[in-house]
Parts: sequence; C-alpha cells; structure tokens
Amino acid sequence: MNMDSLTQSNGEWLRASGPEADIVISSRIRLARNLSSFPFTNRATTHQKAEIEQSLKARVEKLDFDPRLEYVNLAAASPLDRQVLVERQLVSRELANSEGPRGVAVAANEIISIMINEEDHIRMQVIRSGFALDDAWQDADRLDDKLEEKVPYAFSEELGYLTACPTNVGTGLRASVMLHLPALVLSKQIEKVFRALQKINLAVRGLYGEGSRASGDFYQISNQVTLGKSETQIINEIRDVIPQIIAYERQARETLTRDNRPQVLDRVKRAFGTLQNAAMMTSEETMDLLSSVRLGVNLHLIDDIDIHGVNELFIHTQPAHLQKLMGKELDSDERNSERARFLRNRLRELDGLN
Amino acid sequence: MNMDSLTQSNGEWLRASGPEADIVISSRIRLARNLSSFPFTNRATTHQKAEIEQSLKARVEKLDFDPRLEYVNLAAASPLDRQVLVERQLVSRELANSEGPRGVAVAANEIISIMINEEDHIRMQVIRSGFALDDAWQDADRLDDKLEEKVPYAFSEELGYLTACPTNVGTGLRASVMLHLPALVLSKQIEKVFRALQKINLAVRGLYGEGSRASGDFYQISNQVTLGKSETQIINEIRDVIPQIIAYERQARETLTRDNRPQVLDRVKRAFGTLQNAAMMTSEETMDLLSSVRLGVNLHLIDDIDIHGVNELFIHTQPAHLQKLMGKELDSDERNSERARFLRNRLRELDGLN
Repeated sequence: MNMDSLTQSNGEWLRASGPEADIVISSRIRLARNLSSFPFTNRATTHQKAEIEQSLKARVEKLDFDPRLEYVNLAAASPLDRQVLVERQLVSRELANSEGPRGVAVAANEIISIMINEEDHIRMQVIRSGFALDDAWQDADRLDDKLEEKVPYAFSEELGYLTACPTNVGTGLRASVMLHLPALVLSKQIEKVFRALQKINLAVRGLYGEGSRASGDFYQISNQVTLGKSETQIINEIRDVIPQIIAYERQARETLTRDNRPQVLDRVKRAFGTLQNAAMMTSEETMDLLSSVRLGVNLHLIDDIDIHGVNELFIHTQPAHLQKLMGKELDSDERNSERARFLRNRLRELDGLN
Repeated sequence: MNMDSLTQSNGEWLRASGPEADIVISSRIRLARNLSSFPFTNRATTHQKAEIEQSLKARVEKLDFDPRLEYVNLAAASPLDRQVLVERQLVSRELANSEGPRGVAVAANEIISIMINEEDHIRMQVIRSGFALDDAWQDADRLDDKLEEKVPYAFSEELGYLTACPTNVGTGLRASVMLHLPALVLSKQIEKVFRALQKINLAVRGLYGEGSRASGDFYQISNQVTLGKSETQIINEIRDVIPQIIAYERQARETLTRDNRPQVLDRVKRAFGTLQNAAMMTSEETMDLLSSVRLGVNLHLIDDIDIHGVNELFIHTQPAHLQKLMGKELDSDERNSERARFLRNRLRELDGLN
C-alpha cells in the first residue's frame, strides 16, 4: 500500500455522505478472532507471532473478496506511517505502538481493515460513512465468512469465539457509531446523554479511542457486552438508541438557532476567521474550531465551504498527516506553524471552489 | 457645529501623523481658568452659570483666532451628541453628564476645544497628533492670551491662576501624552514603567480619563503638580521622560519580534481575523483586538491596512459614534452586532484601498 497517496486521499467513511451525515460521521463494526492453533498474541513468542502474521498475510492477500485488500507490514513501517494509519482509524494506537511482527490489510477505499497481532490475532473492522450499521455488519459478516473458509478460528460451542480479553468473548463484536454533537456540548446537555447511555451499558469515548478526550465534539458510542447476545441483538441495541441521540442533537441545534442565533453565528464566524488567519495552531484547537465550523455549515450559517472539505480537514491536520503532506518530520512548534499555513491555504482553495 | 458631519470626520490629532506616531498617539495641553467676578462652577447658581456661559460663548465666538471656534450648547444637546464629544476627547465625561448651562467651543479640525462650566469656568485644551507638546503649548498659550484680552481671569499674584480644585492652582496646566504601549503590556513590563513614573509624580490613566482601565493598551501620562513650577518646567518634565518610555516600548517590540515572532504574528493575525469575521463585538474587545492590529501594522506583520484606518476605528466603534453612524439609537446587543458588521465592512473597504 502506498502510504503517500493514502495520506492525500480520503477514506470512503470520511465522505460523510451516508444517512444522517450531518450528525453521524461513521458506523463501525469490529470483529475479534483468533487462530485455534496458536496462543493469544500476548502469550505468543516473537517466532509464533511471525508465523501468525505470515500465515494470515498470505490468506488475506489471496482472499476472493471485493474490494481487494493491501497489506502493510507495521514492524517495517516508519513511526510516521504507523501514525497516519492510526489517524485514519485503520489501525489502533495500541497496534501501532506495540512491537514484534504485526500488520494491517486495508481496502483502497478504507472501508475495511484487518489488523494482525493486535490484542487478538485478527481484528477486522468495517467503517461506513453516516448511520449505516447494517451495511457495515453485512460487509463484516461476509468478510468473516470468507476468512473462516481459509482460517481455523478459535471457537467454543459453549462460549462462542474465544478472545484474549474476556470482555470480547462470544460474538467478538463491537458495534460503534461516531457522532458529532456540538449543540449538545454547547447547551451543556451532553452529560445527561452520557448518563443515559451508561445506564443501558453503552460506552462513550472520543474520536481517537479509549481515554482520549472528545475533542472536536466527536463521540463514539459502542456496545460493552459481547457475550450471551447474538450479533443482531447487539447491533439492534445500538441502532435503536442512535435515532434518539440524533433527535436530541437536532433539537439542541434548533433551540440554539432559535434562541441564541447571534451567539451561535458569532461563535461559528470567529472560528472560521481564526482558522483562516492564525499563524500557529495546535491540533486540539483545530478540532474545536473545525467543530464550530462544521456546525455552522450544517446550520447554513456559513456557505463558504462544503461539509466534505471540513470533514477532510479534521484528519489532514492531525500530526502525522500534516508531516506526510509537508514531506518532512516536524517538531511541535513547526507543526503548529505548518498546520496554520495548511489551514489558511486549504480554506482559501475550498472557498474558491464554491 | 454639525454633529453628524463631526462623527464621520476625523480630528487632526487622530491622523497620527505627528512625530513618533507609531507610539505617541497625541499630545495635549489643558489650561484651567476662571472668571474673577463669579463663584466657581460648583458654588454658582443656575442663573450665574447661565450668565457665565452667555458671556464666555459670546467672547469665544467673536475671538480673533485661527482656527475659528464653533459653539455647542451641551444643555440642549442630545445625550448621544454629548457622548460623541466625549469619545472624541473634546469634552470631559464629567461635563457631558453634569447639569445646567454648559457648553464647548470646538475648532473644526478638533485641535482646540474650550469647555465652559466644567469644574472650572474655562477648560481649554489643545490636542496635537504625535509627540508635539511644544506645538500644543504654543497654541494653548496663544489662545489663552487672546482670551485673557477679553475675559477677566481669577488670578492671585501669590498663587497664580485660581481654580476650583487646589490641585490645579498656579499654572492651571495639565500636560499629557497618550501612548500606545502594547509591547510593554505583552511583555509584562508596563507595571515597572508605572512605578517609575509615579516616583517622579507623573500620573498614568487609560484612554478615557480618570479611573478608566487602559483598554486598547493606551496610556495617558500627565503631570500632577501645577503649583510652584512654571509652565515650561511642567512641560519639560513630561517631555523629557517620554523619549525613555518610547525607547522602552521600541525595545520591547524588537525583543518580541526577535524572540517571539511566531507568537506575535499569531496574535496579530488572529486579532485581524476575529475583527473581520465576528458577528458580535463589545467596544472593550474591539479596543483590545485593534491594539494588536495596530501593533502588527507598525511591526509590518500585516500590510492589508494603513495605520490611519486603524486609528479611526478605535473612535468610530465607540458606542455613541456607532449609533450616530447607524443613524439610530441601539441597545447593547444591537450595538455589539452593528459594531461587528461595521468592522467587517470597514476592514473590507480599507483592504480594498490598499
């Protein structure tokens, strides 16, 4: 896989063209699987991990599956390339930063990725743009069936799929939806939503996985229980609650534009002005300002740029993407300066396109 | 005097074309005088104040003096017009807000104004652009001589000119210089300068007189002692210290651009971007942002607009000016919205001119 062209392209899920795309960024299905003939990754020797990788790489590359998957050897990849894959959500931060034989197979449209030697031998994920859990599940199920034809999975009649961590045993399924909830944050109702979700055993995290704060007002909602329920039950539980959160966010947006229109307009315009003019910009601040701009575009408060351009900037201004786009490694100060320059130029281009 | 045309024009001192105009906004001489045949203003009856006003108005209007002075009856003027005169520094806030017969005679170029029935019967002031205390003093001295030919001043051989407040007795002279010191504020050295000035009995205040905080990083430095010194001594004391403060500010600007150029550039550009994009803006924030822009223009960090345009915006965005320019009274929210619109339009015009 050519990492340079990857950096400049856009994953399918980033197009934000799916259902409810003004609020739902993406829908994701992840399946955890292990080979029956090897110890779990954290118990495997380096030699065993190399065998696992070799065996899975060969089978994945030969898989009769559309789209075709391309393999990236993560042990051989540069730290920057690994970080690019993390920022695109194709690889977990844990796999990128771990050691030993490991890799990821990625479809060119980035809807599918299969991590090898993560916490489990196989972690396959499907990400779809917008609110499209069922489509994602169908892709994942099809991919899982194809792989199962070639690979002997660790499976128990009693427990289901066996995984390294007991929380994944059973279906090995995690279903998650990434939401953009700026109005619930602005109106300070987001905590209430969290408490309600926790009560029904759904987890809430930021854009970049566990422990990361929800910068850019992005929230990932996912199931916590994988055992004792069918895949369909798990997906239904999430799928049924998302429309309610969408309705809350829409209501909050309506209330804001009805009762606080000047304040919201001011916030959105200032964010846009700062992005167009600043000479230094952290990725944290970029996310927060872009979040306001994204809200502004969706509320038709600014018509200078389209939502696709904004979505792209969230990813392209991340540290590793920025360095790949600039073609060199940069320290933190240099990144803040180049990020500001990149944003100024890109927003001027996007403005010109409209 | 036509108040509407005044609002749209610019006082000579606002041109900021005088010596050291990147740091010294204006130099001002004020003389306090009283009529010998009437009690001080705070002891005079309304009838006496009317007599004082009538007598002084007639003499001022007939004065053989270039430029000609035009009289504004402040008791008859609208609160908005009075506030415009305060914002242009032609009338004190105290005189604008007091009651009874009172007025001000103003030269069309706004270099000269003579307040009648302020704390003293006569308060004449000369404001010059840039560092020009001597020129201002020559104008004030000439005006004082002309007036003294027609008006019997309260004068004591022992004490000098008599004034309502003992702090003004003697020369009745206050000499002051308005400085723009953003780099000393940014580098947190401003307090040190204040302490040094206080030690030599000079007072420091904000743009709009006593008690007002120094918004926009404008500081007015003036003498406190008017008794036991000649006019020339008082003026020399101030005039000799200003070059040192100018040198400090220049040094601070050089240090900032040498050691913190990215940070300063970022501050300046963000301020400019916010002024060009915000949908609501208080006058306080406007002053602070314009201060950064003014610094940026003087440091050649932005070349989109000239300094004259920036200086003008400081005054034209004040509450009363804004309402005059919009042609109607506005509440606080409306002002913040109209101010932001005015700034956006004006900065676009100024950008187009360059």
